[in-house]
Amino acid sequence: MSHSSFRPATAVLLAAGLGTRMKSSRPKALQHLAGGPMLAHLLKSAAEVFDRLVVVIGPDMADVAEVAAPYPVVVQHDRLGTAHAALQAEQWFGDGDVAVLYADNPLISAQTLAALLEERRKPGVGLALLAMRPADPARYGRVVANAGNVERIVEWSDATAEERAIDLCNAGVLCADAADFRRWLHAVRNHNAKGEFYLTDVVDLAVADHAQVRAVEAAEDELRGVNSRSELAQAEAALQKRLRQNAMDNGVTLVAPETVFLASDTQLAADVLVEPNVVFGPGVTVHEGAVIRAFSHLEGCEVHAGAVIGPYARLRPETSVGENARIGNFVELKSATLAEGVKVNHLSYIGNAQVGAHTNIGAGTIVCNYDGVFKHNTSIGKNTFVGSNSVLVAPVEIGDNALIAAGSTITDTVPADALALGRARQTTKPERGKLFKDALKAKKENG
Amino acid sequence: MSHSSFRPATAVLLAAGLGTRMKSSRPKALQHLAGGPMLAHLLKSAAEVFDRLVVVIGPDMADVAEVAAPYPVVVQHDRLGTAHAALQAEQWFGDGDVAVLYADNPLISAQTLAALLEERRKPGVGLALLAMRPADPARYGRVVANAGNVERIVEWSDATAEERAIDLCNAGVLCADAADFRRWLHAVRNHNAKGEFYLTDVVDLAVADHAQVRAVEAAEDELRGVNSRSELAQAEAALQKRLRQNAMDNGVTLVAPETVFLASDTQLAADVLVEPNVVFGPGVTVHEGAVIRAFSHLEGCEVHAGAVIGPYARLRPETSVGENARIGNFVELKSATLAEGVKVNHLSYIGNAQVGAHTNIGAGTIVCNYDGVFKHNTSIGKNTFVGSNSVLVAPVEIGDNALIAAGSTITDTVPADALALGRARQTTKPERGKLFKDALKAKKENG
Amino acid sequence: MSHSSFRPATAVLLAAGLGTRMKSSRPKALQHLAGGPMLAHLLKSAAEVFDRLVVVIGPDMADVAEVAAPYPVVVQHDRLGTAHAALQAEQWFGDGDVAVLYADNPLISAQTLAALLEERRKPGVGLALLAMRPADPARYGRVVANAGNVERIVEWSDATAEERAIDLCNAGVLCADAADFRRWLHAVRNHNAKGEFYLTDVVDLAVADHAQVRAVEAAEDELRGVNSRSELAQAEAALQKRLRQNAMDNGVTLVAPETVFLASDTQLAADVLVEPNVVFGPGVTVHEGAVIRAFSHLEGCEVHAGAVIGPYARLRPETSVGENARIGNFVELKSATLAEGVKVNHLSYIGNAQVGAHTNIGAGTIVCNYDGVFKHNTSIGKNTFVGSNSVLVAPVEIGDNALIAAGSTITDTVPADALALGRARQTTKPERGKLFKDALKAKKENG
Repeated sequence: MSHSSFRPATAVLLAAGLGTRMKSSRPKALQHLAGGPMLAHLLKSAAEVFDRLVVVIGPDMADVAEVAAPYPVVVQHDRLGTAHAALQAEQWFGDGDVAVLYADNPLISAQTLAALLEERRKPGVGLALLAMRPADPARYGRVVANAGNVERIVEWSDATAEERAIDLCNAGVLCADAADFRRWLHAVRNHNAKGEFYLTDVVDLAVADHAQVRAVEAAEDELRGVNSRSELAQAEAALQKRLRQNAMDNGVTLVAPETVFLASDTQLAADVLVEPNVVFGPGVTVHEGAVIRAFSHLEGCEVHAGAVIGPYARLRPETSVGENARIGNFVELKSATLAEGVKVNHLSYIGNAQVGAHTNIGAGTIVCNYDGVFKHNTSIGKNTFVGSNSVLVAPVEIGDNALIAAGSTITDTVPADALALGRARQTTKPERGKLFKDALKAKKENG
Repeated sequence: MSHSSFRPATAVLLAAGLGTRMKSSRPKALQHLAGGPMLAHLLKSAAEVFDRLVVVIGPDMADVAEVAAPYPVVVQHDRLGTAHAALQAEQWFGDGDVAVLYADNPLISAQTLAALLEERRKPGVGLALLAMRPADPARYGRVVANAGNVERIVEWSDATAEERAIDLCNAGVLCADAADFRRWLHAVRNHNAKGEFYLTDVVDLAVADHAQVRAVEAAEDELRGVNSRSELAQAEAALQKRLRQNAMDNGVTLVAPETVFLASDTQLAADVLVEPNVVFGPGVTVHEGAVIRAFSHLEGCEVHAGAVIGPYARLRPETSVGENARIGNFVELKSATLAEGVKVNHLSYIGNAQVGAHTNIGAGTIVCNYDGVFKHNTSIGKNTFVGSNSVLVAPVEIGDNALIAAGSTITDTVPADALALGRARQTTKPERGKLFKDALKAKKENG
Repeated sequence: MSHSSFRPATAVLLAAGLGTRMKSSRPKALQHLAGGPMLAHLLKSAAEVFDRLVVVIGPDMADVAEVAAPYPVVVQHDRLGTAHAALQAEQWFGDGDVAVLYADNPLISAQTLAALLEERRKPGVGLALLAMRPADPARYGRVVANAGNVERIVEWSDATAEERAIDLCNAGVLCADAADFRRWLHAVRNHNAKGEFYLTDVVDLAVADHAQVRAVEAAEDELRGVNSRSELAQAEAALQKRLRQNAMDNGVTLVAPETVFLASDTQLAADVLVEPNVVFGPGVTVHEGAVIRAFSHLEGCEVHAGAVIGPYARLRPETSVGENARIGNFVELKSATLAEGVKVNHLSYIGNAQVGAHTNIGAGTIVCNYDGVFKHNTSIGKNTFVGSNSVLVAPVEIGDNALIAAGSTITDTVPADALALGRARQTTKPERGKLFKDALKAKKENG
């Protein structure tokens, strides 16, 4: 096809649903999967295939519009059904093809959407729809087809025994030429029990128009709707399974895949090893050969090659861990840049700090980066040794090759090569330990 | 039925079993499910349906009697079989209906018990029993029925191929009129390989008596017996599945339900979000909109609306976290009451303490509440700032709007608005850090 | 059979495979399962059955040879197929029986190997092979047998529809008399698409020789090959399932077995309780009645009877925890020997230390065992009380019945019964807290 024949494609995403069946005060489209709102997942897939996206929201859903941005939103003021919702976006249909998607069908892949659009564009095809063969098809409408052409969708409640035996089910997603879609949507009537305008009725209208209607099949895991917390958990499980499989296919070892939780954007290089029980929030990149040990939690951070993280390490946003660095147990890093070979092995909090290469941060070290109002910065040089149980009161600078004595409170600059102490000298009082304890015990015995 | 026709119902719970197949020194009835002994689960269900409960224990089972309290126990001194065990409670049968239950069948629901009792009370029914259709029925006795009436129970070892093809299996639980039950139990004989008196023989005796015997079906997950550690783990899994489903049905988001462990009494409000890998011990209440982040562990505590807990937070008994408070990683709270908006974000232990609204507890703060003999109290006011790595030696009081310098050891009262310091001043010795390190390295090189 | 008829058995382990499909730079035999390399698992099973083991490695695989030690290795310089690989070990065949195993079939049990060898040694049997009936047999070669005798192996790609319907699949493992095996291996030809010498061709050669060929069946979980990260994860899951079942059969309670990860050598005594989400690395022994609470991580350590570990405890190698000791949350132990009744309950690091009976280590205590070059030792007596947030700078000795004040830095010996302090005295400045905060706020408001 020549470039001059470019035909635009528009996706209308229906996201006006409330969280009623979720028993949530949050709109359904904003329930999270893999760390991000359902709507964001669908927008990402749709953006790979469609030229124009528009989101239909309900009234008072500024938070949904925020997630939809930069894509435009239109508001469906009255909840009169899915066909009515789709029509609210009519001004955006343009003159190419239009598909209607659902924010509560968030796991649909770009490939499947491309297949839908491609099917629609085959010569003679007037309407393409998505269908699936679920393991348990009971509740779904059935797709009645003849020689590959869809004749109609029959709802479960209206279906005969013979129709119920059909295992091809309607997923509700439709794609048609904009002009056709407009005409059919306007023709939908609300002569049904609930008095709603149903998008599914478009299929009958297309058939009545002698348009060829084709079903494009996709996996149930992509098309299953999310209407309850249980279905949300099922969708999360399906998405995690997909993300884990991708990671393993790329050469990542997941010792126990079912215990590792990934975000959609988690980047794990080949030969990364992930032990059981690790959670990745959004924005994590891990380079080749790094090891993420059990019970670690990472978000918004970069881990360079050969570094070993955890067990029980928490890496928070704006953190970078250098090559072959070692972050140990019960350690939290936040807005911290650690150069290669740095060691922070035990019970430490390092926030708003830069640490130079091969510096060793002793057990129990705290960077005191907050004064109750402001966050301050701490800078530590390379090859420096920070003794255990020290507290570094930001803002403070510690030079290269410096030494901080264990148990120190550091409030002033420590120049390169210097030794800094900020602790009291030990005094020892013979017998006084025993006397104190004996007194306590006597007190206890006397009640 | 009029109130005057009240007919009492008695449940006899057989709990004399040893832990032999469990390879445990603990009686079987005391093995735990969802944080509590198996017997306690069964007592709870039975108490919803029966007017009187009595527990049959073995000799030297004071610990079982303790769990059974306030319900009475009778001791089966000789282990002569289940019919013999049930007869030990004969004095408690009264004149209504009697059901015999098993402590190692702990997941049976109150609804199922009510259905059993209801069936027994239908006109003409002499004996009601519980039955199930397990996925793998192999080991179970089969229920031979004709037109809904049970004719006999046939043990697997005695069953013909035809009988083995029956998928309705006996769960062992029986319910009958007290007088009938007494008579049948006394008529049971021990003419069998083990020389034991089997409760199952009551079915034959009832049929011989021309009593109508009816089977009430329930799910395998409720009726499966717990005889080994594997079966205990299976029962735990079934119970957790039920608890998780209930939570989700109530509007709780469990990101990965299979990684969240609940107690029977866990109370989670709508729109609570629970991330992966969270363990709830007994006695936890979480209010609307609170978030329990990954790797957290809660027991005996209350979390108020909008609070965010974890990741890696441990809340121990007698703890209350106020609205919109924030408890961060590697933080332990014990017997602590935190008002709204309090922040304890990193690596802290707060025990036996009250903390006022909007107070910020810095990283690495330890409340030293134990002197080796007594636990002492710490009270911290509102809008106070406790600097990082401080230790508060209880008993101690800190006022509102106070400020504790980082790295301080606080042993005395800090009045409102005051600044308290308890740390040494920093001294810095140029070049001494390098000299010290060089000396160490030289020592290493010299062996 | 008399002792004089001893007939040696040799196992040839093929371990020359690269990690290509794993997308790994590490040889396939060194991918880990249950904390150890795949090859080590197979060596362990094989050593229980065979008298002699020899490992065939690829060029530049010194790391595989290291794992193979003390067993000898031979190098296959050219990758010309499995029959060629087996022939590299010809010098080790001896004059008894020879079996050829694969490092990427690591879960095969000693019992299965013994059954293979026993089958081979039955009168008249010339070749024995391992076979399985996988849930999904699609990719595997089929075993065509008649009256129990194997007639040939047919590869999936060459199989007729009828042959594909056979569910008995070839696992590739063969066992024959050494002289026969030698002869057949030398007769294998590489007239196939890849030009490789395939071990499977030995079956045809044996049949052509009128040798009786017998298949020994084993479970799919033992015989499934590990060629990708996904299959590695599946093998890990199968192995973990086996290890968990063994533990439960021995009287261990695993509250949620699917969340507990064991090493092959983990020793858990009867009545040990393991809560959800616990990871055992290599070399752990836990004695009767000890409790391992949720989120704990143990490796190379011994936990004595009645001790309670965790939640969130990390026990590292060379650690011993005494009877009824208590290790609490966010505590790390490394090269530490703790006597009975010791308590380390909160946020502590104890490394290179000995702690006497009934000593209490306060919250936030750090043993500073490293000066940047050397590790030093700390010794603490019995019945001693170490106050919270103390740091003990090794090398240091603390006697029995001593008392360390909270917040102390201890650098010198503390004799028995003594009281030691190493902290600054508190100073309190009225109103100064408020003034400081007001100044900060003003600064913020002024930008």
